[in-house]
Amino acid sequence: MNIGIVGLGLIGGCLGLDLRAQGYKVFGVSRRESTCQQAIALGVADQASVDLAILAATEVIFLCTPLAAILPTVEQLIPYLSPNTVLTDVGSVKAPVVEAIAPLWSNFVGGHPMAGKTDSGIEAAQLNLFALKPYVLTPIATTPAAAVEVVEKIARSLQATIYHCRPEEHDRAVSWISHLPVMVSAALIAACMSETNPDVLVLAQQLASSGFRDTSRVGGGNPELGMMMARYNRQELLRSLQHYQHHLEVLIDLVEQENWIALKQQLESNHLVRSYFIDE
Amino acid sequence: MNIGIVGLGLIGGCLGLDLRAQGYKVFGVSRRESTCQQAIALGVADQASVDLAILAATEVIFLCTPLAAILPTVEQLIPYLSPNTVLTDVGSVKAPVVEAIAPLWSNFVGGHPMAGKTDSGIEAAQLNLFALKPYVLTPIATTPAAAVEVVEKIARSLQATIYHCRPEEHDRAVSWISHLPVMVSAALIAACMSETNPDVLVLAQQLASSGFRDTSRVGGGNPELGMMMARYNRQELLRSLQHYQHHLEVLIDLVEQENWIALKQQLESNHLVRSYFIDE
Repeated sequence: MNIGIVGLGLIGGCLGLDLRAQGYKVFGVSRRESTCQQAIALGVADQASVDLAILAATEVIFLCTPLAAILPTVEQLIPYLSPNTVLTDVGSVKAPVVEAIAPLWSNFVGGHPMAGKTDSGIEAAQLNLFALKPYVLTPIATTPAAAVEVVEKIARSLQATIYHCRPEEHDRAVSWISHLPVMVSAALIAACMSETNPDVLVLAQQLASSGFRDTSRVGGGNPELGMMMARYNRQELLRSLQHYQHHLEVLIDLVEQENWIALKQQLESNHLVRSYFIDE
Repeated sequence: MNIGIVGLGLIGGCLGLDLRAQGYKVFGVSRRESTCQQAIALGVADQASVDLAILAATEVIFLCTPLAAILPTVEQLIPYLSPNTVLTDVGSVKAPVVEAIAPLWSNFVGGHPMAGKTDSGIEAAQLNLFALKPYVLTPIATTPAAAVEVVEKIARSLQATIYHCRPEEHDRAVSWISHLPVMVSAALIAACMSETNPDVLVLAQQLASSGFRDTSRVGGGNPELGMMMARYNRQELLRSLQHYQHHLEVLIDLVEQENWIALKQQLESNHLVRSYFIDE
C-alpha cells in the first residue's frame, strides 16, 4: 500500500520510519526542499517532494502539519485525490478539524496519536514512538466504516492502543490531562519569576530540583504547540481552567483556615486518584 | 567523630550510610525497636536504640524526625548533651525550627539537605543520596561560627553543594520551587476528578501520559509531607499562592481574549525562564 505523509516534522517523520519498516511505500511532502532531502536520507520516505502531486498514487494520506495548516492542505490536496483515498490527521484537537474537513472529504478519519518527545523536527524522528501509546480515532456518523478500518489497521501496526470516541469527547478529555497541565505549569513558572527579592529569586533558582523540574516541564515546553492547543481547544480549556481555579481556591481556604486534617485528606485522595490516571 | 541521628527514616537512613562510609561512628535513635534493628542490619548505624541516652557520647546530632517532632526531641535530648554538642536538623522549613530551637540550644545550626526519593522509610536508604544536591544551612546571628563549620564540613563530605542563607530566605525560596508546586499539582488532580461525564473521565484516565504524569507527580506525593510543608510554611505558601492565582488569571484572560500573540510570548518567556531554574 502507498501511504502519503504531509508535514515531515517529528510525528510525520516517526510515522514514515515505522510505516516503511512494515513494508508500506511512503511518499512525503514538506514545504521545504531541504526537509524532503532529509526525509529520504533518514529513511522516513521512499520519495519526497514539495509538490502535493506526488501523493496522487497514494491510498491513505496522513496530515501531519500544524493544526492551522490542515484545512488549507486538504483544499490544495483534493484535486490530486481519487474518491477512495482515505485522509487522516494527527492533530491534538479534534472537533474543529473534523468539522472543517469532513464536509470537504467524506473519507476523512480524525486521529490523534498521543506520543511525543521533547525534541521536535524530522531530525528527532525515531522508530516505535507510538508503540504502547494511545491512538485516538474520532469517526462521526458520516464517516465510512471502511475508511475507519483502514486507518485503524495502520495505527494498530504501529503497536499503538486504539481508542474510539466522538471529537468533542476527545477534546474535553485532553483538555484535562494535556492542555490544562500546560497552563497550570506555565502559571507556576511565571509566578516564580515574580519574586521581587533578587537574593530569594537566585536562591530559588539554585535550589530548584525534581519537584520544580517535573511540575514546570510542560509549561516551559514548545510555545507554538501550547498556544495552538489553547487556540483550537479554547472552550474546553477555559472550562477546565474554571474548575481548576475552584479547586485551587478550596486548597487555599484549607491552608488559610489551618484545616490540616482536611488538607491531608485531600492529598491522600489525590495520591489514590492519581493512580487511576498513571501507572507508576 | 561520633555522630548521632534521631529519626531513622529515608533521610536519617541515607545520612547514616554515607557517614559510616566515611569512617564516622554513627549512633541512631528511633521510636521503634524494630527500626533500630533494621538500622544495624542495613549498616545505617553502628549502634541504635529507642533511648536518647545512647547519644550522650556524640559530638554532632542530626535531627531527622518529622518537623513536628523536632522541638519535643530537643527538649528530651538536652539532659544528655554536653555544652559543646552541635545539633542540626534536616527539616524542609527553617524559620519556625530555628526560632524554636536556637533559644534552647546555642550550638544549633538549621539545615536542609534538598534530596529525596519517591520511596520513604529506612528500607529506601541508599548511599550518595545527597551528592551534587543542595544542602542549605541557615545560621543566625547568635549561631557560633565553630558549630556552622562542623556541620558544613560533614555536609561537604556528603558531596552536597552548600548554600548559606537566613531561615526566612530559605522558606520563601522553597515555597516557590517546592511547596507551591505541590499545591498547584494537587489542584490539578482534584480538578480532573471533577469531570461529571463518566465517559470523558475514563477516557481522560486512559489518555493521560507523560505531561499529566509529570505535572501531577508532587500533588499526588506523600500526603503527610505535603500537609506539614503547608503547616510550617503557611505564610510564605499563601503568599506564593496569591501570586500564582494572579498569573493564572493573566493566562486565562489571554485565552478568553484570544490574544494568541501574547500567550505565545508568555510561553516563550517561560521556556527561557525555566532554564534559569533547571538544567536540561
